[in-house]
Amino acid sequence: MTQPKAPVSLVADIGGTNTRVALATGALLRPDTVARYKNAAFGDLSEVLDAYLGDHGTPDCDAACVALAGPVRDHRGTMTNLDWTIDPATVATATRAERVAVLNDLQAQGHALGYVTPDHLTCLKPGAEAEVGAARLMIGIGTGFNIAPVLTENGQRIVAPAEAGHVTLPTRTAEDRALADHLEAVHGFPSVEEALSGRGVAQVAAWHAQTTGQTPNWTPAEVVAAATSGDPVAKAALAQLTRLLATVIGDLSLIHLPFGGIFLVGGVARALSPWIKSDAFVRAMQDKGRFSSLVADIPVWLVEDDYAALTGQAHYLDQLR
Amino acid sequence: MTQPKAPVSLVADIGGTNTRVALATGALLRPDTVARYKNAAFGDLSEVLDAYLGDHGTPDCDAACVALAGPVRDHRGTMTNLDWTIDPATVATATRAERVAVLNDLQAQGHALGYVTPDHLTCLKPGAEAEVGAARLMIGIGTGFNIAPVLTENGQRIVAPAEAGHVTLPTRTAEDRALADHLEAVHGFPSVEEALSGRGVAQVAAWHAQTTGQTPNWTPAEVVAAATSGDPVAKAALAQLTRLLATVIGDLSLIHLPFGGIFLVGGVARALSPWIKSDAFVRAMQDKGRFSSLVADIPVWLVEDDYAALTGQAHYLDQLR
Repeated sequence: MTQPKAPVSLVADIGGTNTRVALATGALLRPDTVARYKNAAFGDLSEVLDAYLGDHGTPDCDAACVALAGPVRDHRGTMTNLDWTIDPATVATATRAERVAVLNDLQAQGHALGYVTPDHLTCLKPGAEAEVGAARLMIGIGTGFNIAPVLTENGQRIVAPAEAGHVTLPTRTAEDRALADHLEAVHGFPSVEEALSGRGVAQVAAWHAQTTGQTPNWTPAEVVAAATSGDPVAKAALAQLTRLLATVIGDLSLIHLPFGGIFLVGGVARALSPWIKSDAFVRAMQDKGRFSSLVADIPVWLVEDDYAALTGQAHYLDQLR
Repeated sequence: MTQPKAPVSLVADIGGTNTRVALATGALLRPDTVARYKNAAFGDLSEVLDAYLGDHGTPDCDAACVALAGPVRDHRGTMTNLDWTIDPATVATATRAERVAVLNDLQAQGHALGYVTPDHLTCLKPGAEAEVGAARLMIGIGTGFNIAPVLTENGQRIVAPAEAGHVTLPTRTAEDRALADHLEAVHGFPSVEEALSGRGVAQVAAWHAQTTGQTPNWTPAEVVAAATSGDPVAKAALAQLTRLLATVIGDLSLIHLPFGGIFLVGGVARALSPWIKSDAFVRAMQDKGRFSSLVADIPVWLVEDDYAALTGQAHYLDQLR
């Protein structure tokens, strides 16, 4: 018997503006093959995949995966700002791969856990040592808010989809309730994502500014910059956002028991990391009555790895072989 | 090669008052072998298992599982009202089984999904048809409140543990906020379980009674009986509890996307089922802004099967073989 050649797979990550495509050999992403395509220049996903394969010598792929920053249901993905058809049939036709998959971006990142190198990880809150195979939880805070629990049993990893940004925003104080009332009045429902996302940071800061008669109309980055340089309104907004995020993360800790760690990704998570790394965050996360000590055992990490979604897809496809 | 004999396993379900023990052949529970032991008559779990095995001809078990109505961490279970040692070593020593496991009761019930017969299932809220293998969610509402998500991939089922009764009670109305303030004042933290459990029903009813100057001091069953016979205070309490339960179930629907269904178990779920089967429940469950239609697709079932936890353990052990 001859040793079979390591199989090649194609992985693609569709973001709001760009799609990145790459090849993997076995479970290993090949960073030299990553290419980026502007979504606006293409009419459909199949055109992007055709262009990539043409640019890369039409490799023979046995598996292909597409991840997208949007919900996936019955293996079909949808994105608010793109009318592309994102489903297994499209991926299979374009790549001629036998095994195809469509994941949401948080699931793809969840499949990368364990393969992200230490230089891409920062500990924001320590926890207790956990046993091998303990559950982990990815939380993405950027354009939107979502999660992906990462579970392992008998060597099989399952990374479940969720729409966790759309649950009721938990409120513990009069200020939080006033904010929830404001978000409900504006959006019809006071969801976690209306506070904990890029637009959330902007609208929470605008709401704080309003109560002082100011109308700064900050971008999320400007809120963080203003708070860093001591602006009291921006500081108050970020103090509230930190407390709300801690409450949400504490609740998700009890729902998923991720003793293997919580891993934050996304631009807002990165921007808020100095606030997350604070006593105020730890206090609010652990404010769970007699379950405080359980939540205290769960560490929180920041992941900064641009290739995590592609890496995760390569490992996911390899697990299907 | 001779056909091996179907392996025998021992399964045990430790409740607040009794422990039930049974044998299974392969994945199949043998109802004729179920025996019940009063916890108070035994000093430890190993004594119960010794008694059972002695009473049943010391069968040769290759696998054994214990489920308990309490948290399990690092395979070790704890119950508030029992100082028994509940861990794999104790189970292995008592049963001489090679494969042993300790689960919480909701996980055990989750492993029974797919094997509960239709006569033990009542549809409380219809949903959309789901594909085979869709995620399901067990929710137990009885002495406490907890959940167990049931996920399947590549034939491997994972039923994850949780402590979901201890998250922040979501509040959408002034009445809910007043109740949360009351629960926080009494218990230090306004958790879901302080409202949605046996003691929760009693204390929510007592809180409603207080505002009218009454002090009925009802048991949970008396609250349901009083509401059924038209008592306005009990009716108001159950209307609020129904709304709160619907909000919690709607949030858990977005967190777990259980398109395969939500399955309610426990005495409080059974008692509240006439209220759950109402337009008010459906309206509140689906009150999630632009994600209402997604939540609308998720069906809600009531499970009434006394042997579900034992059945689930038998299937779980068989999956480990």
